[in-house]
Amino acid sequence: MTEKKISSAVIKRLPRYYRYLSELLENGIDRISSQELSRKMNVTASQIRQDFNNFGGFGQQGYGYNVEVLREEIGKILGLDQKYHVIILGAGNLGQALANYGGFTKRGFIVSGIFDVNPEKVGQKIGDTQVMDMAKLQEFVAKNTVDIAALTLPKAKAPEVAKELVGLGVCAFWNFAATDLNLPEGVAVENVHLAESLMRLSYNIVNLNKD
Amino acid sequence: MTEKKISSAVIKRLPRYYRYLSELLENGIDRISSQELSRKMNVTASQIRQDFNNFGGFGQQGYGYNVEVLREEIGKILGLDQKYHVIILGAGNLGQALANYGGFTKRGFIVSGIFDVNPEKVGQKIGDTQVMDMAKLQEFVAKNTVDIAALTLPKAKAPEVAKELVGLGVCAFWNFAATDLNLPEGVAVENVHLAESLMRLSYNIVNLNKD
Repeated sequence: MTEKKISSAVIKRLPRYYRYLSELLENGIDRISSQELSRKMNVTASQIRQDFNNFGGFGQQGYGYNVEVLREEIGKILGLDQKYHVIILGAGNLGQALANYGGFTKRGFIVSGIFDVNPEKVGQKIGDTQVMDMAKLQEFVAKNTVDIAALTLPKAKAPEVAKELVGLGVCAFWNFAATDLNLPEGVAVENVHLAESLMRLSYNIVNLNKD
Repeated sequence: MTEKKISSAVIKRLPRYYRYLSELLENGIDRISSQELSRKMNVTASQIRQDFNNFGGFGQQGYGYNVEVLREEIGKILGLDQKYHVIILGAGNLGQALANYGGFTKRGFIVSGIFDVNPEKVGQKIGDTQVMDMAKLQEFVAKNTVDIAALTLPKAKAPEVAKELVGLGVCAFWNFAATDLNLPEGVAVENVHLAESLMRLSYNIVNLNKD
């Protein structure tokens, strides 16, 4: 798309732009100025223009942005113009929440398998998918395309399962376990550490009270 | 604790230090050098020393850090030396996952109420807590201390419920709804936008494949 190295701060902001543009489209708004977008998103218009200039600017300022085109362009940058087959490791509440969330399917993330070690869970249906025995994981990955593994396993188990999956060719992990996976380079890992998120909140509570 | 303004990047890293120090303690390790900690955490020792210097350094380099003391100090900075009463709005899979996660209680976050609009869920027990009718929310908040509201509601509902709770005196939100809450200043908000997290992962997948 572009030869410039885009800063990770910009990349982190792109999904939020994508979310706002999706909402505008849902509300039938097909054109928006950087000023209006700035007001809605609570960032400066200059920030928006700077961010978009990393990708060529996305259209003329005087007329505003074409919402659908802009959303599609940002979607492409984010890799949302393709499908991803996702397996979920761990069929607890969190694994079930991920499997049942329709928003992922809409954006091209298809849950193709859910695995658990608990015999009571194996065979249960979650959404359209039946929970499989963790013992069948290797066979499943050998026979099916797996683009992303979502880990909702206990932290003691997650790193070894991730390592095994890397050995089987899985290159991307959405990690909810409260541990780092320490995987080799070339493997994409996105961590969602809920306990750490909660600690940032308590920090902010204490510091708001101080002022 | 300190009069210097601590950068938000440092604050973001503190929970990860806290997690590693907790693991060291669990494994019976009571002293660690910045070099060893650096190896474990995969950050430079100089980064660690710089981060800790924001808070006075936490002890002598030559002898390494006392793990228990360091963990307690960082815990204090993060506000983990006090208890927080948490209510969960939405008793779906995600709300249940949060309610059932023992790690939160261990760190002083006590789930004191779960609310839902669905009559089939009201009255059900999740962990030690019974799901209450959303209609009872106002009464509950008036009678009980509520430090944090975790929102696992649909995005169309979350901002209005949050606004109502701010009106009732709740000052901190852990927001899982795929929307911004737009609350007044002085209210602490920590967002966990799962769809955005997944988009960052797809971006990384596409860009790893490019190299």
